[in-house]
Amino acid sequence: MASASRGEGWTYARAGVDVGERARALARLVEAIRYRPPPTHGRAVGPSGHFAGLLRIGRETIAMTTDTVGTKVRLAETLGRWEEVGEDIVGVNVNDLAAVGARTAGLVDVILCGAPDAATFAAIGRGLDRGLRAARCHLLGGETAIVPDVVAGIDLGGTAIGFFPKGRDPVTGARIRPGDRILGIPSTGVHANGFTLVRRLLAEAHVDLARPRPGAEIPVGIELLRPTRIYSETADAIAGRPDVHGLAHLSGGGARNLIRLRPGVGFVLDRWPDPPPLFGWLQGLGGISPEEMFGTFNMGVGFAVVVAREHLAESRRRLARAGAPDVVEIGHVERGSGVTIPSWNVRFTGYE
Amino acid sequence: MASASRGEGWTYARAGVDVGERARALARLVEAIRYRPPPTHGRAVGPSGHFAGLLRIGRETIAMTTDTVGTKVRLAETLGRWEEVGEDIVGVNVNDLAAVGARTAGLVDVILCGAPDAATFAAIGRGLDRGLRAARCHLLGGETAIVPDVVAGIDLGGTAIGFFPKGRDPVTGARIRPGDRILGIPSTGVHANGFTLVRRLLAEAHVDLARPRPGAEIPVGIELLRPTRIYSETADAIAGRPDVHGLAHLSGGGARNLIRLRPGVGFVLDRWPDPPPLFGWLQGLGGISPEEMFGTFNMGVGFAVVVAREHLAESRRRLARAGAPDVVEIGHVERGSGVTIPSWNVRFTGYE
Repeated sequence: MASASRGEGWTYARAGVDVGERARALARLVEAIRYRPPPTHGRAVGPSGHFAGLLRIGRETIAMTTDTVGTKVRLAETLGRWEEVGEDIVGVNVNDLAAVGARTAGLVDVILCGAPDAATFAAIGRGLDRGLRAARCHLLGGETAIVPDVVAGIDLGGTAIGFFPKGRDPVTGARIRPGDRILGIPSTGVHANGFTLVRRLLAEAHVDLARPRPGAEIPVGIELLRPTRIYSETADAIAGRPDVHGLAHLSGGGARNLIRLRPGVGFVLDRWPDPPPLFGWLQGLGGISPEEMFGTFNMGVGFAVVVAREHLAESRRRLARAGAPDVVEIGHVERGSGVTIPSWNVRFTGYE
Repeated sequence: MASASRGEGWTYARAGVDVGERARALARLVEAIRYRPPPTHGRAVGPSGHFAGLLRIGRETIAMTTDTVGTKVRLAETLGRWEEVGEDIVGVNVNDLAAVGARTAGLVDVILCGAPDAATFAAIGRGLDRGLRAARCHLLGGETAIVPDVVAGIDLGGTAIGFFPKGRDPVTGARIRPGDRILGIPSTGVHANGFTLVRRLLAEAHVDLARPRPGAEIPVGIELLRPTRIYSETADAIAGRPDVHGLAHLSGGGARNLIRLRPGVGFVLDRWPDPPPLFGWLQGLGGISPEEMFGTFNMGVGFAVVVAREHLAESRRRLARAGAPDVVEIGHVERGSGVTIPSWNVRFTGYE
């Protein structure tokens, strides 16, 4: 894959993931989809390209989203640990449901592998169980495809559906306005994004996964494998409130995800907390620019909540009570555009 | 993957897909899932392990199922043709919704690839569009994961959701009783199952994909690539009727899928039509037993409808009007168990 490297440090593109090329290919796919079904088969509602698709079915609105654990599975394979990525199948999906204000309902998992191994599957099952418990989600089925010529090792993914309890509308970001405050809920680590880059950095620097990085106490392999924090119940506790104007899952694309919420406003992240040392260590391994770091990783904040200024304190209390006592204020909304992180001199004008 | 070969001919297991090993690994995964969500997050309804999972959400019942195109993508890659497998993303999923009597509503697609190529994605998009049109299905989103270390080439999959129009209940097979008649709707070819075996047979026999097999007029590569027939609208036209006792998508596992409908009855397929010559040719390439053929491929019939005997003629007429003028009677239900195909001396006692 041809891709220009920005500056001299490592980039996600140089590691093999060119999001620009992906966007161009995807545009070709999407423009080929011309068909619009009749309303007898459900009615599409809400903006397309948001964190989850929305479909009005009979008397309910259903949210649906799909994602995979990506190349984090290769780290799991190296370490022979599958519970964490099993849990990630749930996290990477239900957090996108949470970002449209939907309540989690059901998940199907997809495991692609060359040859199924019982112990590996048991560990994936234990991880799935933990994730389902955290998200209060039904497992509605799954697919195990034995495709020895297609995948090396194992690929893990899934699809989740959610709904809107009576009286709650989807949260799209349309109500966001200048003056709003932005709250952030910490991540547990790199979650399941940017692992093609992470693995290149580890390999280039000959990092021993069994030893802690400087200043840490657990092996860096374990630290990197930590499952995605699940924000479902926390978001569910506030999603229906009129003072909650926007929700964002800061996964692939990091802080840039805020741009998806609303055009025509600027997200100024002038209170971004110091990223956990793991991110600084990764940055140092590859001489990576702050822009690349904030545009690839969550940098310590995995979920954002945009609230009306006058409800800031109350929203913080509600989130703290609903599983996020560590919520912090990370910025505010201004007139303008894009995402700005002044202390790191980072500015994003587009999502991809 | 170690697996015993049955007889001397080629088998699905010898080609690299051991469904017994898959079943054992999957059992370990499923037994690890202990969590049951509270009813505030939807209520699971209907049998688990059926063609689609069923969840009561608010005032609607949602059906959800996930599947991939499997190793058929490798044939697409060899031929440089992606429209057919793009359409298969829809077919392999919506036919499972049809098999629980659900009406198709929405689909998300998942494309895993090493590097995205715009022309390939455009062709996949055209195929998706055709499939969505045939199934009257919304595309609600998708995931394009660039995972160069995980997949060779491209993997295609998706997840579909459906619902039950007012007054219609899910069709589970529970109403099936001895004396019922079984109708079959023809397939368009091998659909998207058994391709690990197909590709081994083609390679061993040095088959030229660009030439027709004996007796055929189109190149065998094109013949094998034909997209999965989509049964959604046909099934939707009859699913709500009380005389329709069971529906089955004969995909992976072929005629064995009927066993999933109801234990304690025997499915006797004593009117199975002559399989299209493509299947006989494949069988001859590898010296494959009839049991292996009927347990791996659809053998010419892709969807089955079990109806009350007294409504046989009327059901045929309805199906014929709803897109299946080629529907045929393929057998009946007796006291007993399993699936029997007398003219081929084939008997299945379990689904896997």
